[in-house]
Amino acid sequence: MSKVVRAAVLGATGYTGAELLRLLDGHPEVAVVHVFGNSTAGQRLPEVLPSLVGTLDLEIERFDVGDTACEFDVAFCCLPHGASAPAVSYLREQGVKVFDLSADFRLRDRAVFEAWYGEHGAPELFGTGVYGLVELHREAIKAADLVAVPGCYPTASILALAPLFKNGLVAPGPVVVDAKSGVSGAGRGLSKGAHFAEAGEGVRAYKSAGRHRHTPEIEQELTAVAGTSVSVTFTPHLIPMTRGLLATAYVQALENTTGPRCTEAARELYGESSSVTVLEEGAHPDTTWVRGSNKALVSYAVDSRTGLITAYCAIDNLVKGASGQAVQCLNLRFGWAEGLGVAGAPVWP
Amino acid sequence: MSKVVRAAVLGATGYTGAELLRLLDGHPEVAVVHVFGNSTAGQRLPEVLPSLVGTLDLEIERFDVGDTACEFDVAFCCLPHGASAPAVSYLREQGVKVFDLSADFRLRDRAVFEAWYGEHGAPELFGTGVYGLVELHREAIKAADLVAVPGCYPTASILALAPLFKNGLVAPGPVVVDAKSGVSGAGRGLSKGAHFAEAGEGVRAYKSAGRHRHTPEIEQELTAVAGTSVSVTFTPHLIPMTRGLLATAYVQALENTTGPRCTEAARELYGESSSVTVLEEGAHPDTTWVRGSNKALVSYAVDSRTGLITAYCAIDNLVKGASGQAVQCLNLRFGWAEGLGVAGAPVWP
Amino acid sequence: MSKVVRAAVLGATGYTGAELLRLLDGHPEVAVVHVFGNSTAGQRLPEVLPSLVGTLDLEIERFDVGDTACEFDVAFCCLPHGASAPAVSYLREQGVKVFDLSADFRLRDRAVFEAWYGEHGAPELFGTGVYGLVELHREAIKAADLVAVPGCYPTASILALAPLFKNGLVAPGPVVVDAKSGVSGAGRGLSKGAHFAEAGEGVRAYKSAGRHRHTPEIEQELTAVAGTSVSVTFTPHLIPMTRGLLATAYVQALENTTGPRCTEAARELYGESSSVTVLEEGAHPDTTWVRGSNKALVSYAVDSRTGLITAYCAIDNLVKGASGQAVQCLNLRFGWAEGLGVAGAPVWP
Amino acid sequence: MSKVVRAAVLGATGYTGAELLRLLDGHPEVAVVHVFGNSTAGQRLPEVLPSLVGTLDLEIERFDVGDTACEFDVAFCCLPHGASAPAVSYLREQGVKVFDLSADFRLRDRAVFEAWYGEHGAPELFGTGVYGLVELHREAIKAADLVAVPGCYPTASILALAPLFKNGLVAPGPVVVDAKSGVSGAGRGLSKGAHFAEAGEGVRAYKSAGRHRHTPEIEQELTAVAGTSVSVTFTPHLIPMTRGLLATAYVQALENTTGPRCTEAARELYGESSSVTVLEEGAHPDTTWVRGSNKALVSYAVDSRTGLITAYCAIDNLVKGASGQAVQCLNLRFGWAEGLGVAGAPVWP
Repeated sequence: MSKVVRAAVLGATGYTGAELLRLLDGHPEVAVVHVFGNSTAGQRLPEVLPSLVGTLDLEIERFDVGDTACEFDVAFCCLPHGASAPAVSYLREQGVKVFDLSADFRLRDRAVFEAWYGEHGAPELFGTGVYGLVELHREAIKAADLVAVPGCYPTASILALAPLFKNGLVAPGPVVVDAKSGVSGAGRGLSKGAHFAEAGEGVRAYKSAGRHRHTPEIEQELTAVAGTSVSVTFTPHLIPMTRGLLATAYVQALENTTGPRCTEAARELYGESSSVTVLEEGAHPDTTWVRGSNKALVSYAVDSRTGLITAYCAIDNLVKGASGQAVQCLNLRFGWAEGLGVAGAPVWP
Repeated sequence: MSKVVRAAVLGATGYTGAELLRLLDGHPEVAVVHVFGNSTAGQRLPEVLPSLVGTLDLEIERFDVGDTACEFDVAFCCLPHGASAPAVSYLREQGVKVFDLSADFRLRDRAVFEAWYGEHGAPELFGTGVYGLVELHREAIKAADLVAVPGCYPTASILALAPLFKNGLVAPGPVVVDAKSGVSGAGRGLSKGAHFAEAGEGVRAYKSAGRHRHTPEIEQELTAVAGTSVSVTFTPHLIPMTRGLLATAYVQALENTTGPRCTEAARELYGESSSVTVLEEGAHPDTTWVRGSNKALVSYAVDSRTGLITAYCAIDNLVKGASGQAVQCLNLRFGWAEGLGVAGAPVWP
Repeated sequence: MSKVVRAAVLGATGYTGAELLRLLDGHPEVAVVHVFGNSTAGQRLPEVLPSLVGTLDLEIERFDVGDTACEFDVAFCCLPHGASAPAVSYLREQGVKVFDLSADFRLRDRAVFEAWYGEHGAPELFGTGVYGLVELHREAIKAADLVAVPGCYPTASILALAPLFKNGLVAPGPVVVDAKSGVSGAGRGLSKGAHFAEAGEGVRAYKSAGRHRHTPEIEQELTAVAGTSVSVTFTPHLIPMTRGLLATAYVQALENTTGPRCTEAARELYGESSSVTVLEEGAHPDTTWVRGSNKALVSYAVDSRTGLITAYCAIDNLVKGASGQAVQCLNLRFGWAEGLGVAGAPVWP
Repeated sequence: MSKVVRAAVLGATGYTGAELLRLLDGHPEVAVVHVFGNSTAGQRLPEVLPSLVGTLDLEIERFDVGDTACEFDVAFCCLPHGASAPAVSYLREQGVKVFDLSADFRLRDRAVFEAWYGEHGAPELFGTGVYGLVELHREAIKAADLVAVPGCYPTASILALAPLFKNGLVAPGPVVVDAKSGVSGAGRGLSKGAHFAEAGEGVRAYKSAGRHRHTPEIEQELTAVAGTSVSVTFTPHLIPMTRGLLATAYVQALENTTGPRCTEAARELYGESSSVTVLEEGAHPDTTWVRGSNKALVSYAVDSRTGLITAYCAIDNLVKGASGQAVQCLNLRFGWAEGLGVAGAPVWP
């Protein structure tokens, strides 16, 4: 079988890079032809990612902006925020379609970007990316040459809440997102917070009370679907598991909003999606039910005693929350079935 | 050293029973003289609780209401809700001081009890227990012969929020408690939800949206400190760790409420406590920092973008959330130092 | 795409059944047309296996020996030992090709079978199954209508040791296999040993010192490759992880046996395999490097101080140790590429 | 209560240091008066060890050999191998009794030390330490001013095997120790091997086939009890849990050696011990049964099919495998009850 599209992965040896290589290796239309990783350049992939031994044995190469020959059709950028923009800029100049997994092209308001991230690394491209949350931007992604793939927290938070705001089911009041993430979300960089003996067997929040940088993305997208400004208190927590993310969101229901109405709104919005399944009202999605897959499980309940809606979304942070979603965007861009290569069932238990 | 007080434990072979035996074994003034467990009666303790081999080798006995001779001064009841009331009633008749870890004597409003639990098993005693949350009811516990020791969820939820309501720092609006509990909180009874391969490496909510029976306790106690009715949306989650509970609570701040003001309010309320430590504003307590200890770590932050207060409380669900708190109550009742036998540092990492 | 082969899964709702459904769902030539599970008959698959929601929505049916119409070409039996034999017997009568994951058809010596398992449930078929360890019985499997797929412990133990015995690299002396298995290996049946709070965060052996029923299989296969009787001390341990199995085996090296020689012997034996990768001498395979995949990683080292060979094999107990291997056998039987549908890269991290 | 002995801890902020502080905080006769840690000097203990907030609030100090005033009676050295020797030398010059948790003073053969570790950092003291395995060297420890406290692997390996060698129950042949350790055994230093997402949910060996530096200690002590040279193949494995260590040892039984005879031999040797409990023949000690305690659980079985003895020892690697054992040695040295301050029951579950 000859593969149609030649792909490169930048930042291939972190967790989202590794996950992309796994998914692309199983994709019928894509061949990974180059992998880049500046700190490991010169090594073979399985030396750095031993799970790929016997699967993919490419040499890791340096990527130098302005210099590297770009003999591939698409690039997936798994570089850190800030480092991504210049690479993306160069790739676009070379005519490469880019799926960027950093935050560099997700925000549309320059002032908001600068408030949270500082100066932008490729101002000429600022605002030209399409936000790669498939379920909200399907049509735009089909035509996009630069897709800004959202990360795990915004994906889960927005998928849980978008149907409610889109359908005007929410009363004024606070919007709380309490998110629980597996430790792989913290990346492959070593830190005390991800050291097994300190991260294992415990739970804690971090970067809370308006300090997590993914907050403005969540607000941008919810504001767009609501048609009115939405502010969010977003609290991420680290959970002693490797993969998985559960967002539990709380909003005040409008008086006539019921659980079934929320569920119905979500089924309307996500009917076309190859990823999102809306569970019965009152169901509690478990992150183990999506592990290793591109699925998102969403559900709703209304607490009749307090009038609050609880909205859940469970995803695998590295798949629907990163690399799987990037492939889903690729599929749209090339006119393939949305779930091509990312439709595998979850690895359970 | 001759021990002063003779204690019995009913329901000794579940997790809270086991934890009581560990704590009482190290208590300088208490001797455990009888352990009761009807399904395991006749066996030696270490056969059922192998961690006690070489520590405590009593025979497990049957406890029959109306029949068992009560040759002990105090009893700790670790029986299931409903089963506890008749046992407590009989123990009180025999003049035994009781520390009950079930929900049977925690609520003070009979109608509320019946709405959540059905008929009460010892109506003559209903309402006579003192709610054993030391930090709110210290004086009453000193004189109580029946203490209704709260469980892990109410303990953490109330400790996080009480200082805010007591000091009028909260604006009208929803009260959200998003709780994350280790799986030991589900008890020793076998269930698919606590089966390793299904509970491990994942996170999910359960009994949410106003369905968890500990909700009315939380409301009862917060209403009492607030002096006005408080309703709570309480959402428990299971986390893949054995011990530990983190409550993350969200309430709307009054306009002039700041993080430091919340912290100060908590320090005032908990100044005397042998258990509660109030961390710096913005700190994120980790359940591993209290594991195996009777500590509770509390902290606060205000999200200036949304005006929401985030209040945290981390405890070990089996210690401050159950057995350690029971011993703390015992200490108060007998006039000993509040932390006697339960002042050990956490087992970290 | 119209699928060629119609398959049924018996015992579909245990862990090996669930894993088969995941793998077959992604197999290009196989359609799962019936799923059987007597205790859950009448329910839809996702009610019992929530990870399949949105993937496979069949009704679970009863399977009655002598009664059920067998409108499928192949059956995968994931029934308990003993229960499998009569079902297999009936399926064979109906002309169905059977891949049996129980122990009922793995042993070839009737006396040995009876010593470990008691009477056989389908004596007329005893000894007619082909042992489904692909790397040792590839040719026989291609022609087999009844394949006895080995479980996780024998697979890992035999893969580690077979090259050594086949090439006469082992001196007389004890053969020790110290195996470490994830808790999913204990199955979906509830037990205290698999209860999260008791299985988590600890390690222990079980059924050791010649009591585990998979011992005779390991001996049968090693004896066959060695051409002389091999006895094994096999010690299984439970590890607090869901999936994965590492066998660490120890045998005495013949005087001229070196680590590189062991490695070379394994590369010869496994050169054709779609599953087994032989790592460099002295490498330490990690079960996370095979998780979710049909891979087996094997490596060797010789302790020059003591003359012992250490042989490792890491597999995913539910894939190469059960369902993936069954699919590999199916592929051989139908003349497809050995790795068809089971060549996905491991889910790492 | 005025405490009798003033103690200092060097290297206080690693895991064995933290565990010592926990244990000494509860010790009735010891006051921790100084804590040293050069990389964190100037900070308060709870800033670096948050589990000590509200328990122990000392300032961390620098320790400079030749310079630091030693106003304490005993020192516990939790420094890395090599760094410990000069500190110990200086402490001894100042008349301080030393309990050293490094490997610097454990070996008695200079050539062996140099082969495994290189040059010794305090040659004048080489060989003057008493090996602090209480159960083998009780009398010598009572008089020792320099105790070389063994680490977790030697403690468990030796405790499992010593009774067999001491009583001549072992036939000639290989001695295999397959050890399973929690990740805290790798220390607080960051590494990919202890990064949660890579260490979690998997198992692997490391430094095997005669490469782990604790091998010669095990051999030294077993040779001494056997009265003849014992060589060991020692294979450590990392297990996805924080604490706990299980050693599974395999030796050939002499013909008349039975399981009960092994058990009896261990009961004789460990009768006096405050730590070691010998379980019934065939029992499988679980590391969760000793977690947080100074206990060691030992048991034996003989595989009658192969004639191999399996010997188990389960400990908490940070307590009996390090800090608890150090306190046990201290107790002996000062004539206190051996278990003083370290007799607490395990934290289970």
